[in-house]
Amino acid sequence: MRYDSHPAGRHFLQIPGPTNVPDRVLRAIDRPTIDHRGPEFAELGLSILGRIGSIFDTREPVVVYAASGTGAWEAALVNTLSPGDRVLMAETGHFALLWKRLAERLGLQPEFLPGDWRHGASAEAIHARLADDRDHAIKAVCVVHNETSTGVVSDIPGVRRAIDRASHPALFMVDTISSLASIEYRHDAWGVDVTVAGSQKGLMLPPGLSFNAVSEKARAASKHAKLPRAYWGWDEIIAANANGYWPWTPATNLLYGLDAALDQLLEEGLPNVWSRHARHGNATRAAVRAWGLEILCANPAEYSNSLTAVLMPAGHDADAFRKLVLERFDMSLGTGLSKLAGKVFRIGHLGDFNDLTLMGALAGVEMGLALAKVPHRPGGVDAAMRELTGGASDATAKQRAAVSEPA
Amino acid sequence: MRYDSHPAGRHFLQIPGPTNVPDRVLRAIDRPTIDHRGPEFAELGLSILGRIGSIFDTREPVVVYAASGTGAWEAALVNTLSPGDRVLMAETGHFALLWKRLAERLGLQPEFLPGDWRHGASAEAIHARLADDRDHAIKAVCVVHNETSTGVVSDIPGVRRAIDRASHPALFMVDTISSLASIEYRHDAWGVDVTVAGSQKGLMLPPGLSFNAVSEKARAASKHAKLPRAYWGWDEIIAANANGYWPWTPATNLLYGLDAALDQLLEEGLPNVWSRHARHGNATRAAVRAWGLEILCANPAEYSNSLTAVLMPAGHDADAFRKLVLERFDMSLGTGLSKLAGKVFRIGHLGDFNDLTLMGALAGVEMGLALAKVPHRPGGVDAAMRELTGGASDATAKQRAAVSEPA
Amino acid sequence: MRYDSHPAGRHFLQIPGPTNVPDRVLRAIDRPTIDHRGPEFAELGLSILGRIGSIFDTREPVVVYAASGTGAWEAALVNTLSPGDRVLMAETGHFALLWKRLAERLGLQPEFLPGDWRHGASAEAIHARLADDRDHAIKAVCVVHNETSTGVVSDIPGVRRAIDRASHPALFMVDTISSLASIEYRHDAWGVDVTVAGSQKGLMLPPGLSFNAVSEKARAASKHAKLPRAYWGWDEIIAANANGYWPWTPATNLLYGLDAALDQLLEEGLPNVWSRHARHGNATRAAVRAWGLEILCANPAEYSNSLTAVLMPAGHDADAFRKLVLERFDMSLGTGLSKLAGKVFRIGHLGDFNDLTLMGALAGVEMGLALAKVPHRPGGVDAAMRELTGGASDATAKQRAAVSEPA
Amino acid sequence: MRYDSHPAGRHFLQIPGPTNVPDRVLRAIDRPTIDHRGPEFAELGLSILGRIGSIFDTREPVVVYAASGTGAWEAALVNTLSPGDRVLMAETGHFALLWKRLAERLGLQPEFLPGDWRHGASAEAIHARLADDRDHAIKAVCVVHNETSTGVVSDIPGVRRAIDRASHPALFMVDTISSLASIEYRHDAWGVDVTVAGSQKGLMLPPGLSFNAVSEKARAASKHAKLPRAYWGWDEIIAANANGYWPWTPATNLLYGLDAALDQLLEEGLPNVWSRHARHGNATRAAVRAWGLEILCANPAEYSNSLTAVLMPAGHDADAFRKLVLERFDMSLGTGLSKLAGKVFRIGHLGDFNDLTLMGALAGVEMGLALAKVPHRPGGVDAAMRELTGGASDATAKQRAAVSEPA
Repeated sequence: MRYDSHPAGRHFLQIPGPTNVPDRVLRAIDRPTIDHRGPEFAELGLSILGRIGSIFDTREPVVVYAASGTGAWEAALVNTLSPGDRVLMAETGHFALLWKRLAERLGLQPEFLPGDWRHGASAEAIHARLADDRDHAIKAVCVVHNETSTGVVSDIPGVRRAIDRASHPALFMVDTISSLASIEYRHDAWGVDVTVAGSQKGLMLPPGLSFNAVSEKARAASKHAKLPRAYWGWDEIIAANANGYWPWTPATNLLYGLDAALDQLLEEGLPNVWSRHARHGNATRAAVRAWGLEILCANPAEYSNSLTAVLMPAGHDADAFRKLVLERFDMSLGTGLSKLAGKVFRIGHLGDFNDLTLMGALAGVEMGLALAKVPHRPGGVDAAMRELTGGASDATAKQRAAVSEPA
Repeated sequence: MRYDSHPAGRHFLQIPGPTNVPDRVLRAIDRPTIDHRGPEFAELGLSILGRIGSIFDTREPVVVYAASGTGAWEAALVNTLSPGDRVLMAETGHFALLWKRLAERLGLQPEFLPGDWRHGASAEAIHARLADDRDHAIKAVCVVHNETSTGVVSDIPGVRRAIDRASHPALFMVDTISSLASIEYRHDAWGVDVTVAGSQKGLMLPPGLSFNAVSEKARAASKHAKLPRAYWGWDEIIAANANGYWPWTPATNLLYGLDAALDQLLEEGLPNVWSRHARHGNATRAAVRAWGLEILCANPAEYSNSLTAVLMPAGHDADAFRKLVLERFDMSLGTGLSKLAGKVFRIGHLGDFNDLTLMGALAGVEMGLALAKVPHRPGGVDAAMRELTGGASDATAKQRAAVSEPA
Repeated sequence: MRYDSHPAGRHFLQIPGPTNVPDRVLRAIDRPTIDHRGPEFAELGLSILGRIGSIFDTREPVVVYAASGTGAWEAALVNTLSPGDRVLMAETGHFALLWKRLAERLGLQPEFLPGDWRHGASAEAIHARLADDRDHAIKAVCVVHNETSTGVVSDIPGVRRAIDRASHPALFMVDTISSLASIEYRHDAWGVDVTVAGSQKGLMLPPGLSFNAVSEKARAASKHAKLPRAYWGWDEIIAANANGYWPWTPATNLLYGLDAALDQLLEEGLPNVWSRHARHGNATRAAVRAWGLEILCANPAEYSNSLTAVLMPAGHDADAFRKLVLERFDMSLGTGLSKLAGKVFRIGHLGDFNDLTLMGALAGVEMGLALAKVPHRPGGVDAAMRELTGGASDATAKQRAAVSEPA
Repeated sequence: MRYDSHPAGRHFLQIPGPTNVPDRVLRAIDRPTIDHRGPEFAELGLSILGRIGSIFDTREPVVVYAASGTGAWEAALVNTLSPGDRVLMAETGHFALLWKRLAERLGLQPEFLPGDWRHGASAEAIHARLADDRDHAIKAVCVVHNETSTGVVSDIPGVRRAIDRASHPALFMVDTISSLASIEYRHDAWGVDVTVAGSQKGLMLPPGLSFNAVSEKARAASKHAKLPRAYWGWDEIIAANANGYWPWTPATNLLYGLDAALDQLLEEGLPNVWSRHARHGNATRAAVRAWGLEILCANPAEYSNSLTAVLMPAGHDADAFRKLVLERFDMSLGTGLSKLAGKVFRIGHLGDFNDLTLMGALAGVEMGLALAKVPHRPGGVDAAMRELTGGASDATAKQRAAVSEPA
């Protein structure tokens, strides 16, 4: 098969992940594979394991799997829970739904706090349910930090406080698949027990690696958890990691890429990475507003800085629009998932990304709207440019301030 | 971290996997990541799924995981079995032992037919045990085709006949991690229900993908199997594969590599690939015999064509020897695993490999033996050259004949 | 040295060459070097030499040098002329001036028809001078097709007609360094004797290769030309090329890239390539007009489709503006050369390039103008979007029509 | 065209150049091309220009051309000489002959001191001729340091002394194309005026760059030299180099590779690089002797450490042998050139190369000799292994000693 028959120029990969992989990461993953039990590999393993925690802002172990993010969802549950355990999950959107279904397949009993797919998880509802759970039947609370299907961010510190106010011992598990290394996140400070992440978003890698950052409490729970597990078992991995190795053959070449991605992220500095995403989130939303279209996320305090889901005007099919944009401008936009199918398109603005690529992406949306005869006002690109120049410094300053005060 | 500080020339990666990845595969995996839900990805997916079966010689579905081979071991078991099920496993070596332990962790009851780590699985012992199992408590028979820790090949058609002679309904599962695309293997013709494989050996890819080829009988069993499973579930993957997609985000860039590796293997032709490995197995064994060293595999009918484990003379540490070879000649040899630690070293001769690289590898072993003052006779490289020239045509012809008469 | 310390996202290389090299070309040039006298190389050589002529629209030999474009300028002259020969050259800008100086260094006597750097070569002036040259002292007429320093295209068929009208036997040499594979060009149909080209513009390669397409008349002239030449000698190269080889060691890896670039250009089709550049030229000029800035090229019939040079308002330094754009938006714009230094900046819109990258580039210019407080009107990006959508189809149709009626 | 249809494993490129390019260099050259007038390029240029001299062991300028080595031959002559100048050249083999022909094409008058293609340049003969040249008609003495067609090294310090003893003012020019960064060479200490070099041998790059290291005397001569020159002109290049730039567009991506190759060479250390080549030269010659074949180089003091030319026994065609080796073992050996055609084959053992690759190469020759039924004794590989182990330490020590006593 040929992958290189693209029309002229580079493809614009503006889905909310997989994201654009930097050349330095692509070049890292094409290095010759090495002996996964030799001294050179150990050096690689230790280089990664010694730095990966900083991305989660944790001093706890981060377990790196050769698996997609779905595997890391499964790992979080099977390492800590037992058959029939109750799990409280918040319906933020499609991915929350998938995680819930996965929990069911594993023999757990998820309770799904209903949501309208336009808001984040409700800390109040979680508090109420936990306060009600006098005998602590609920063993874990699971929340998606940035719901990739909707572009809504849940207030993780708020949920933590809700659990604490209920004095409930449930483990707290957070999916950061589309927020890690894009939107501020702090595993330790926010009291999360298991953070689930994937390689193909803010980490700027191809898909194929996923992660569990695990608190001491989670590791303690894993000693008594009865769901069967082998590949996902934290114990053997953490033990082997001490020397830079894995108990099974790890995905060497993706690890080369991870090492290079860590270099790049730590060179830029996480707060700068977050600010950059905030800039691009602001600019994108300015464009959507100028077009007169509606942002799916209903609460400005919960806007996502890694993607923006945009509602199509009634009578217009989002997927027909996406197809036109792909064919005419060689840009991939995110589709609406499950109940949002056809109703929204999603603009990814995360990963290895800069102002001019964003402007190209927004121009592609604006021209696509025109060509697809979707009712809208012009001026979105203009608004984004104003946001990135005139108003940009203020916005960034505000965002930086926000970043430095983690709840 | 720097990976490019090697001394002059190329590293000789002569462990029995991960193997040397061809440049065309490395270059394929460094292409930009694409939308895993877009039309270009579907084309890639269908290109792979339409051809991968030919490597297993099967018309049945082959499930491709983003995971290491250990994940595919787990997948084979959790898709087909229920908690407490009995599984008959054959102790061929370290990897058989690991698979058995994994079964235990999953809550199965493996019976381990004992072995001396120098022979393949005994079809007779398997027949005897199954014949004895009147009420069919045993739900699966699990055999490692090519035991990577010992270089011994088990007779899979023979085990199939043993199961059939016992008229036993157990599923037949075979680990081909270090034999697929190196040593003749035929999923359909040999009546295997689940074939487990990995990317990093004969498929010439980096680690990170693994495989289950699954018979109709295995898929039927999965409908009633009660071990929890989600990520590993065949059902959702096979359903999504119909359109070239996966239910979770697949490891796009490794799939690029798989597509390129399929190109290369199918261009060469599997029988030619097998013959090439037979040539190199013969030549390596000729060298070991000339050195006066002992091949771990005790039965010539069971010699592996993908690796050769060599016993160190008493009083000599195999790992000290390996260290010397690594430091002096920049060649990685395989270590002795668990009870073979320090007692054997393993020469990998599989994957993307040719006569001259083999000669370089054998010269490195011969020079290493001299420098490490390991008692041996010179002449191993000479013997291998004779095997590859004078006697080579006969040997290859013989091997080709063998190849064309499966079971 | 590290080249990968860029800020997030991809650099926008919007100089008028070197241009953005497609990944498939970059990946081609990193293949292992091969024996330049072996059969595999011959296959590569013949693949290139059998197709390169189609890019020049010629059936005559195209000589490929390992050298920069300057080398190909020299080659054109030393192969055809003798010490002291008169050469008629047209002052279109900086590169015409450099070619003239090179002719002087080689011991030729160039006559330089003066120009204002805002117009193309005057066919009338050329005709007048040639008509005057009764004894045919002038041995060659040299014109730059697309003057890279100014963004002005000269009318090559018009110059040809001028020469013919004067019944003058001078050789006709054309520099297409920044027009080949971007702007319509026809070596044979337009009666050019030597076409000079380079790899790093429309051919989408890194610099390091350059070209002479040579007519039969030029080859005949080379038999009597007395300027010393060795490396540049057409005779030995054309002779060796018959079998796919070169008389000296050719630049193997850049040739890999050339082969891949030919694949890409011929897949798209040269008329489509030209139309695409016309679209982008139109859109860029629409933006410049909307900003209220002045295009350096004074004659709309001579607008370049590969770059646009923009005059800075008086009192504003183009290089200070370029520096701001580079630092703030990671975009390289072309500098003003020699007498245009500080007065113009140049936007390259050629090579492997598409609508959205153009929009990113124009947005960078527009935001840069704002941040640099250069007097301008907003709306350039908007105008370009209108050009690419509403009016685009008409414009393209018109351009295609133009393309199909050479000379 | 497809370049990746090789049979399994890596090609053995054992011609005496182009040599095997290390992955880190290949990966460097596939980086995106940048603005050759921007600050990032200047950093690259200065990084190279600040270190390239150390490879020539000079403090003088080294001029880097986008051209093959033939171009650098031409550059050396046209920068320093005038039409009709006499040049004394030594007939060491095919490449000396090509350089002489090039001098003739440029209008110089080379005198060719005859040689038998089995010895280096005779310092005595040079001295005698110069002593005879009372009126100093001879303007330059040109010697090939390592004659690539024969594997014979000329004694450059000896020639220098010969010139000095004759008190002759001729410039001294040395071709180090196949010796630089392989065999000890010292531009300054050995009093060379122009050193000619290429990228594709010891520098481990693809072809496409070439070099002139130029003494102050040579630069002074260039002020009065009358051969026309433009592209090759040292003056403009050296001037532009002061800021890290070139007067014409340089071959950016090959320069990336040069920067990486300098990293690798300087990490290993030039004396270690020379010692490594000496080891491999010794081992190769030990093999040839064991085979009972004749080394073309007749004087052991002049053996080349970068290649070995081997005489075929009478009645056997070297090219038929090479073809067999290429087809059977996927190894390229060097052909016999001009009068040596069919009579010798050449084994390249230079560049990015190590012990085991050498052993693979020698095994390929030994097996090829057997298969081609060329009369020889077995045992060449054995002899080389003995050389690399038993005797290796002594040999290396000896070589190191030699290395530290230049001239």
